[in-house]
Parts: sequence; C-alpha cells; structure tokens
Amino acid sequence: MTLVVINPNSSDIVTRGIEAALAPFAEFGPPIRCLTLAEGPAAIESQAEADLTIAPMLALAASQEDATGFVIACFGDPGLHALRDRVAVPVVGIQEAAVLTALSLGQRFGVISILAASVPRHLRAFGAMGVMDRLAGDRPIGRGVADLAEAAATSAAMIDTGRLLRDADGADVLVMGCAGMAGYRAEIEAATGLPVVEPCQAAAGLALSQIGLGYRRKERPA
Amino acid sequence: MTLVVINPNSSDIVTRGIEAALAPFAEFGPPIRCLTLAEGPAAIESQAEADLTIAPMLALAASQEDATGFVIACFGDPGLHALRDRVAVPVVGIQEAAVLTALSLGQRFGVISILAASVPRHLRAFGAMGVMDRLAGDRPIGRGVADLAEAAATSAAMIDTGRLLRDADGADVLVMGCAGMAGYRAEIEAATGLPVVEPCQAAAGLALSQIGLGYRRKERPA
Amino acid sequence: MTLVVINPNSSDIVTRGIEAALAPFAEFGPPIRCLTLAEGPAAIESQAEADLTIAPMLALAASQEDATGFVIACFGDPGLHALRDRVAVPVVGIQEAAVLTALSLGQRFGVISILAASVPRHLRAFGAMGVMDRLAGDRPIGRGVADLAEAAATSAAMIDTGRLLRDADGADVLVMGCAGMAGYRAEIEAATGLPVVEPCQAAAGLALSQIGLGYRRKERPA
Amino acid sequence: MTLVVINPNSSDIVTRGIEAALAPFAEFGPPIRCLTLAEGPAAIESQAEADLTIAPMLALAASQEDATGFVIACFGDPGLHALRDRVAVPVVGIQEAAVLTALSLGQRFGVISILAASVPRHLRAFGAMGVMDRLAGDRPIGRGVADLAEAAATSAAMIDTGRLLRDADGADVLVMGCAGMAGYRAEIEAATGLPVVEPCQAAAGLALSQIGLGYRRKERPA
Amino acid sequence: MTLVVINPNSSDIVTRGIEAALAPFAEFGPPIRCLTLAEGPAAIESQAEADLTIAPMLALAASQEDATGFVIACFGDPGLHALRDRVAVPVVGIQEAAVLTALSLGQRFGVISILAASVPRHLRAFGAMGVMDRLAGDRPIGRGVADLAEAAATSAAMIDTGRLLRDADGADVLVMGCAGMAGYRAEIEAATGLPVVEPCQAAAGLALSQIGLGYRRKERPA
Amino acid sequence: MTLVVINPNSSDIVTRGIEAALAPFAEFGPPIRCLTLAEGPAAIESQAEADLTIAPMLALAASQEDATGFVIACFGDPGLHALRDRVAVPVVGIQEAAVLTALSLGQRFGVISILAASVPRHLRAFGAMGVMDRLAGDRPIGRGVADLAEAAATSAAMIDTGRLLRDADGADVLVMGCAGMAGYRAEIEAATGLPVVEPCQAAAGLALSQIGLGYRRKERPA
Repeated sequence: MTLVVINPNSSDIVTRGIEAALAPFAEFGPPIRCLTLAEGPAAIESQAEADLTIAPMLALAASQEDATGFVIACFGDPGLHALRDRVAVPVVGIQEAAVLTALSLGQRFGVISILAASVPRHLRAFGAMGVMDRLAGDRPIGRGVADLAEAAATSAAMIDTGRLLRDADGADVLVMGCAGMAGYRAEIEAATGLPVVEPCQAAAGLALSQIGLGYRRKERPA
Repeated sequence: MTLVVINPNSSDIVTRGIEAALAPFAEFGPPIRCLTLAEGPAAIESQAEADLTIAPMLALAASQEDATGFVIACFGDPGLHALRDRVAVPVVGIQEAAVLTALSLGQRFGVISILAASVPRHLRAFGAMGVMDRLAGDRPIGRGVADLAEAAATSAAMIDTGRLLRDADGADVLVMGCAGMAGYRAEIEAATGLPVVEPCQAAAGLALSQIGLGYRRKERPA
Repeated sequence: MTLVVINPNSSDIVTRGIEAALAPFAEFGPPIRCLTLAEGPAAIESQAEADLTIAPMLALAASQEDATGFVIACFGDPGLHALRDRVAVPVVGIQEAAVLTALSLGQRFGVISILAASVPRHLRAFGAMGVMDRLAGDRPIGRGVADLAEAAATSAAMIDTGRLLRDADGADVLVMGCAGMAGYRAEIEAATGLPVVEPCQAAAGLALSQIGLGYRRKERPA
Repeated sequence: MTLVVINPNSSDIVTRGIEAALAPFAEFGPPIRCLTLAEGPAAIESQAEADLTIAPMLALAASQEDATGFVIACFGDPGLHALRDRVAVPVVGIQEAAVLTALSLGQRFGVISILAASVPRHLRAFGAMGVMDRLAGDRPIGRGVADLAEAAATSAAMIDTGRLLRDADGADVLVMGCAGMAGYRAEIEAATGLPVVEPCQAAAGLALSQIGLGYRRKERPA
Repeated sequence: MTLVVINPNSSDIVTRGIEAALAPFAEFGPPIRCLTLAEGPAAIESQAEADLTIAPMLALAASQEDATGFVIACFGDPGLHALRDRVAVPVVGIQEAAVLTALSLGQRFGVISILAASVPRHLRAFGAMGVMDRLAGDRPIGRGVADLAEAAATSAAMIDTGRLLRDADGADVLVMGCAGMAGYRAEIEAATGLPVVEPCQAAAGLALSQIGLGYRRKERPA
Repeated sequence: MTLVVINPNSSDIVTRGIEAALAPFAEFGPPIRCLTLAEGPAAIESQAEADLTIAPMLALAASQEDATGFVIACFGDPGLHALRDRVAVPVVGIQEAAVLTALSLGQRFGVISILAASVPRHLRAFGAMGVMDRLAGDRPIGRGVADLAEAAATSAAMIDTGRLLRDADGADVLVMGCAGMAGYRAEIEAATGLPVVEPCQAAAGLALSQIGLGYRRKERPA
C-alpha cells in the first residue's frame, strides 16, 4: 500500500526535490514513492508538453500494482482526469490540491508562476475549479524550469513576486506554481510573512487523507 | 502536541460519534482529542445558537495548552475566524473543509442538510468561499439534530435526499451538512454510489496536513 | 414605534457621530434611537471582537420593547442573522445596506477600510452577498478606530485612499468601511467627486423603508 | 421638491395602482407625484416596446421642474441610465431597486414574471447587476399586462408561481416582475409566507432615502 | 440577400471606415451594405445618445427589404434586442460579437475605450453577457469620437493603453471599444504583439456565419 | 490555403457527417478538408480517450502544409491549446465555438450530451471559459457515440432532452454536445422551436472568420 507520486518531467533532480518536500509525511499513514517519468520532457512549460506526458504517465501508473493513490506532480495537472477515469484509488493533482489548500489558509491566493505563458493555462484551471473570485493574482518570475536550480536568482525573483502579489494584488496566501520550486518555501514565507503552499506537499496531504478515509468516485463508463 | 476537536454543542453523544469518525487518523501524526462544549446548546440549528457558542468556545480553546491545531466541529463553522484571530496554530472549520474536500472528489457537490432554515446559512458560507458555481444543490431532510439519532428514519431520509441531489441536481459528490450525521456515511455511499464527505473527517484530514506542513497565517492586528 | 440603532462598541462618541449622520431622517416615518452597547469593546477591529458583541447585543435588543426595527451599526454586521432569528421586525446591517446602496449609485464600488486585517472579513461578506463582480477594490487607510478621531490625518488618508480606489481600481462610488468614519462623508465626496455611502445612513434609510412597507421574513425554526 | 414617478406605459389604471402602493410613504420626506407617459404603449412586453418609451420619457422628465428625484416604473428600467446621464438628482429603476431590496430580505430571490419572453431580459439585467448567484429562479405566469386586471386568475397564477419558486427553486423572498402587479402583494405574502417585494414601493423607498441623503453621481460627459 | 450594417451615428466617415474594415469578407457569402443613420447624433458617447438612436434605427432596418441579417455598428449595441424582437433574420451587435470573438483568441480580454464614462456601460454589458471573469481591464484613452480622426495622437494613445492592458492587467487579447477606431487595428497589433479585435469585423464574421447556417431565434410575443 | 477539420476519432462515418454539415460554407472563403484521425479510438467518451488523441492529432496537423487554420472536431476540444502552442494559424475547438455561438443566439444555453459521464467534463470546460452563469443545463441522452447512428431512437432522445432543457431548465438555445450528432440539427430545431448549434458548423464559421481577418495569437515560449 503506497502513495505513488509521479513527476511527469524527466528530471531526477526535480523528483528528489519533491521527495524532500514530502519528508513531513513520513509518519502519516502509507509510505510514499516518488517516480520520474522517463519519457517526459526535461521541463514542462507549454500545454503541448504537458498533454504529451499523459500517455506514458498512464502507462507508468498502470504498472504500480501496490498503489493505493496517486499524485501527479506537475502544476497543470496533466492527465488528472484521465487517470481518474482509469483507476479507482484517489488521484490528486498538485495544482488542484494547492489551490484548495490555499483556500483554507487565506481569502485571496496569489500564484508565483514560472513564465508569462503559464498564466492563461492556470486561469483556465482556476476557472474550471470555479474559484476565480478567490484569486488575487498570478504573476510569472520569468524563469523557465531549467533556471529554477539557480538558487540565489530564483529566490530573489520569487520573493519580489510574492511581495507584489501581497502588496499590489492583496494576496494573503501564496501558491508556488511549479513542482520545481519545492525547495524555496521557507525562504518565501520568511520574506513575505504569508503562508506559502508548496503544491506537492498540499497534494500528498490531500491524497493521504483521501486514502485514509476511503473515498471512492462515482463509477464512470470505461 | 494534540489536535483538539471541539464540538460546540453540549451533546456527548455527538462528540463520541465524531471520535468514532476520526478513527482512521489514528496513525496520522499527532493524537486527536475530542471535546464537548459544556456551555453549548443541546443542538445548534439557528445562526443565533451558533453565534452564542463562540465566547465559550474561545475560552475552551484557550485552555488547551498542548493544542497544535483546532477543528471546530459544527457545520456553520461558528467562531472559525475568531479563533484564527486568537491563535497561531491551524484552525479548521468542518464546513469549509468538507466543501474543499468535495471539490477534489467531484465537479458539483450536493449538501444534505438538516432543516430548511439551514440552507440560507450554508449559501452565505459557500458564497463567502466563492464556490457557488460548484454547488449542485442543498436540500434539507427536515429533521433536527435531536432526530438524527433515530437511525432508520434518518438514514432513509438522507438516502432519498442524496439521490435527489444526484439525479435532479446533478451532484457527483455529497456533503453531510451536520456533525451529528457522522455515523451514516457508509450507508449513503452504498445507496447513492457517490463519494460522501463526512465533514469532521475532512476537517481532521486537513488540519493534520496543515500541522504536519507547518503553515502559518499572516500576522493580524490584535 | 422606534427604529433602534445599536452601536456595538462602547464608544459614546461613535454613537453621537451616528446620531448626527442620521439627522436627515428626522422627517422619515418613525423616530430613531441610537444606543451604545456598554458591554462592547472600545473598538471592533477583529472578527473575534465582533463576534463577542453578539450575546450582549441580542440582550440589549430584546429589551427594546418599542422597537419596530433594528440597525446594527458596525461594519461587519455582527449578529445580523442572529437577531433576524430572534425578532420579526426588520433588522438591517450597515455593511449590507451600504453595499446595496452603493450598487444603486455606481457600477463598481470601492471600500475605504480602517486596517489591512479588515479586508479579508469584508471580502467574505461581499462573497456571501454574491456581489464580488461589482467590487472595484477595498483598501485600508491603516488607522484603527481610535485614530479616526484625529480629523486632519484621517481625512487626508481617506481622501488619498478614495482617489486610489477611483483612479487605480475604477470605483465610481465609495463606501466608508467603519461606523466611526461617519463625519467625513462630505469631505470625501468633495475631494473625489464620487458619491460616498456612509453605512449608518444607508442602513437607516433601508430600515425605515422596510418598516414603512411592512416586509416580513419567512418564519424560521426556533 | 417632489419625487416624480413615471409609469412609461399609457395606462392610467396602472399609474393609479402604483399611487396606491406608495401610500405608506406619505410621511417620508418629499411628496410623490405619479405620472402616466401618454406616448407610451398600452403595455410594455418586449425590449422594443421598452426602448421606444425612452425618448418621450426623457422629455416628460425634463419638464418636471420641481423634481428632486425620479422613479422609472417599468420592470426593465427603460431609460434608467439615459435619465441618469441627463439629470443630477437621484434616478431609480424599479427593477434594480426591487432586486436590491430583495437581497436585504432573503438569500435567494425568485421573480414572478408576466411572460416567458420577459425572462431573458430580466437575466440580462440581473447579470449586469452582478447578482446571478442570488437568483433562485424567474418564472412567468403566462399572462400579459392586459390580463393582470383579472384579479382572481392573476392572483391564483401568481400564488402558484410563488410557491413553485419557493419549493422547487429555493426562493426565500419574492419579487413581483411588473408594475401592474402592485395590488397583489398582500395576497402573495399570505399564501407563500415569504416577503414579497413590490418594485414600485422598493424604488420609492430607495429614491426617498437617496434624496434625503443627498447622494450625487460622478459627473459624466454630456 | 444582403447583410445590412447600420452605423447609428450620422458620420459617413465612420461608415466608410467600417466598410473598409469589412473588405476581407468580400468573398464570404452574401454582399454587405453599410448604412449611416441620418437621424443619429454626430457621435454616441452616452447611454442617452445610444438609446435615442433605437427608434430611427428600427425604422431604417424595417425599410431594408433584402436584408438577410443585420449588424448594429455601435459599441454599446443600442437596440440589439429590440431589433431581434422585430425581425426573424440574424441581428448581431458589434460589442457582443467582439467580446465573443476575443474569448476565442485569448484568456483575458482588455478593452480600449474612448472615454472614462464608457466604462460603466461596458461593464454592465459584460455582466449581462456573464463574462466578467474573462475581463482583464477596460481603460479609456480619453478621446471622444470626434478626436479619433486625428491619427497620430489616437494611435499613440491606443498603443499606450493597449500596452497597459497587456502589462498591468494581463490581457492577452485586445478589443477596440468603438466603431470609429476601425482603421487602427494593424498598428495596435504591431505595437502590442496581441491579437486585436475590431468589433465591426467580428460582428460581420459572426453574422455571415449565422446567415449561412440558418439559425433562427425562438419565437417571441409581439 | 485550406481549413483543415480533424475528427480525432477513427470513424469515417462521423467525418462524412461533419463534411455534410459544413456544406453551407462552400462559398465562404478558403476550401475545407475534413480528415479522420486513423490512430483515434472508434469513439471518444472519456477524458482518457480524449487526451490520448492529442499526440497523433498534433502529428497529423503538422503534416497539413497548406493549412491556413484548424478545427478540432471533438466536443471536449482535446489538444486545442496544445495545437495553438504549435502553429500560428487559427485553431478552433468545436466545444468552445459552439458555446460562443450559442451565447449570441440566446441568454441561456442547454447542452444535449451523450452520456452522464460527459457532463463533469463539459462543466470544467464551461468553467474555464467563465460562462457558467449562462448555462441553463447539460443533460445526457444516455447513448454512446456508437448508438448515435440509430436515427429514430437518437432523434427521439435528443428531442425529449431538448424539450426538458427548454421547459425545466429555461434554455432558449441548444448546443449538440457531440460531433456525431451533426445530422440531427434540423429535427431538433423543428421539435423544440429553439435555435440548435451544431458545433462543427459553429467552429468552421468561427475559423473561417478568423482566417479572413488574419488574427494572430501572442507569441508563446516554445
């Protein structure tokens, strides 16, 4: 019985970062296994790149026989509903979980995104969730996934953006809009004074709770 | 380090029901302590009754020195933001948590309420949460809190209402709109084929996750 | 037959300011009596402070035997629905009435609040009212209730904030977000060129109209 | 100093009904004068009919030299914003005022309309007001303005529709969707147990309050 | 069989500009005839001016016996629903069509308006359309219709405003908020890098498609 | 220069039906070529099936060198934004186009869907479009794609559902929620008296207009 977390890009560094972020859940029910999608791109920065991970992700998920739940660890939740169509166990997307968690921590959430092109994708997702009235703003730091590893520059850009979301847009809770940002939560919280939701953590917390409580989705046609 | 769950009505039977519902979390991080608010009314069925529990609830919460988080276990979340003003640890309301959990389990949630008079209160809360576009419907079973203990009649009424929410309103996930309904989850799931969110369970899951991840709210003026 | 206006903080100065603001209604139907809630705090600046006024406010209201209607004169409307549960006569909250009045005077309303911590409370209320699409912005002047009596500094801060709401946020009507601001309406209107809604005035106007027309609420279970 | 109420259809019977409905305001500030628009159609049942009243209505309004405020007494508010462009005194539409009043009396309003073709017009107006989340339903009685004078049949149809809005749609306050229904308020309230908003009454109450408080709109280009 | 485009102001220059903008549709089904409303004002800049064009516009439309569809070429869509009440063929307003077209080209649309007073009118229309969540912003260039002919100043103002909508408000598609701006589309697109919707083009495209497909509206009472 | 319409399921019968539906556009600008996605499933009835068509659809699109625009002809718009990421020419999804077209033909649209499982997918899409306030209802006929070819039963089910959307839900325009329903438009219009939007027609009309007008999207990072 294992919660399987799939990083749909092919970067093991990102997967290790997710693994580290989930350390607080070591004592929360079932163990967690973080996997890298070998067939994924080095980084997922467009809708096309996201959509093309779905086929291999579904295959990888199907091979995890001990899985009692899944987390799809890409902000954008590629294949979230497709995998829900395929398996009966809980499936959680990190974008959806991060937003739901933020709604419990503040009245207006701000999103720190990687690139300007990410924002329309996010807005479509927030609209699909019906939570646009709770969005303070979504602002890019202008750095792609590959650039996130440069710690000083990334941290500085995230802090500037977080403060802008707080001061200009009125956010009282922040969401980090990329799984590759997992290591920066403490710094952003310290610099902004706001709670910061790391989406993989939010998703694992939600998935573990759903597993523990045995929720099941309505049956859907194959 | 304990998660303190406060039932703001004075019914120990309801508190014991909540305790039973939270059994699945025995292995999820910190222990859980369920308290009955002695000063609360036998049942909370109006806004006035809910509001008047806030003062003694705040006092009870203040006396829980080992609390690392709180759940307010009345659908209506009386005092949720007041307690958040007073303490730094996570505070979760069962109504808010149940709705957020439902949003991760279906596209439109239906609420099984106790009385017709409950519905406008719920709608105000769902509006404050900004999630009205996700609401399928909110229908009362026409039974007060005292009547919930009559298992056969309550179960039958909840099943009828759940099916109506599913078939007439298009709900694909159900929320039980009262802490006193905690014992009926399995039956309603079996009869409707839908996931059913028991709000105290949802709240405890969210609170435990927030505790584990160390979220902190923005400082607020005293 | 009297319209009873309850100021739920303990400041007689605020109550006298409300009384002065209601002078234009001297010829509008029933007389108006403005009361100070002796048990209230000196100022209401948090949700906890607001919630704790409900119990004594309900008691004070219950003792007003000639009341043909009530206004609760704190922006935040503490106990609004609780008092509606208790009495059959019209009960109006100044926040709700101010917003409804603003909706008749412009397309987007801006709120001049006291403190940053007030804003999330307001947003929850506006969401519960379902009017978020009409909100231009809600900006604090950064002065607590006690500071409002310093006329020059308060007036200057309110004018700056009103102009920002007009120019940066697109407000074409302003709402003063605290009963303690009642004396500043004329100045803000002159400086911004916008209609400015003083919430106690808006509430008294609405209450007098409801009294005159004899509206009654649907019966609710006790 | 007079509040001028303009009935934009040419029916004196409707105007007399409005006059009777406004009797409760005899003691509320300035006197009220109800006028019939001679150039108006016998009944206003389409958008084209409504729009074509605007030119003569503006001319009639311009000739009322003692007017200290206006009410446009057709549900649909034809010319509301056009007259606001022309005069500095308060201008209130009965549709807008009725909805705002209903928002203070219940959580979800139901509208009793005359014809099925009225409903899309109403929905456009409620959308423009940003209050769709508060709408329970809008249901026609299937009777044109000319038929409203047949008391027994009209009353029966309105009661049936009001009960349907209450029971099937969840309305806890009703709005009568035509100035020609003014005489039926008491009956519908008695039969449904809900508060019923007569829109001319709501508009006069709002206009009198705006006049008393001296609100002024932002200057607009000619 | 002709698509009739009515410019409801009396400026032939504006009509000729519209004609030029529609050149790309020379090969798309039926021919297009652009008419100037002789009785219209030189410019339409207020709700009153817009509303007063409806009567002569309906008369002009009624005289177009070969019309197989209509476009009302004023941003504000005066008489749109009135003409739909009168004729069975497709009737398209340029504001509605421009917004719908923008929704297919980006996630958040920004509107370049003429005057500050235009904005509340637009917001009412966007609210009636139910698309407020897709609006990035609506900003005036502060130039009336008469000033639009000064090409250099107008173009510069539109480019500045378009960039502000893109950079400060997050628009990824722009709508020109006046038929008199038709000649500036290419410049604004080049300067902002965003798709720019010229509303008469959008309306003609939609009308031609509706004509080709033979849509019919539900019958409405006369 | 050709508009390429891709049917992402592998059914040539469906493709031929689409081709027939687009006959009215023979004279509207560029020619239209309808293609079947050989790698697609026989029918697309789940999110997983839809998502898995994206990779081969992108490949097929990339091979269409003369394409001056694309339509993705599956209600659900699989790969819509992915293809927009890849090509500069207009890309239109039939779901998005059908809804936008419906918004120009009525105030509330009703959707005739194939299966109950389709509805949550549609609601996510309508939410992403921000048009939930315009939705009257979405009701399944309970027939999969394979069953749509049985004309008598399908037609009867669609008519019943269309009438229910009109009478119970208040729809004044209908959208057919599957490309495989293309042949039934005339019958449903005749039986319901409402305009019925066939989504492939709506999409082709929108795409041809976008092609004619030369819209271009903002550049996005690769």
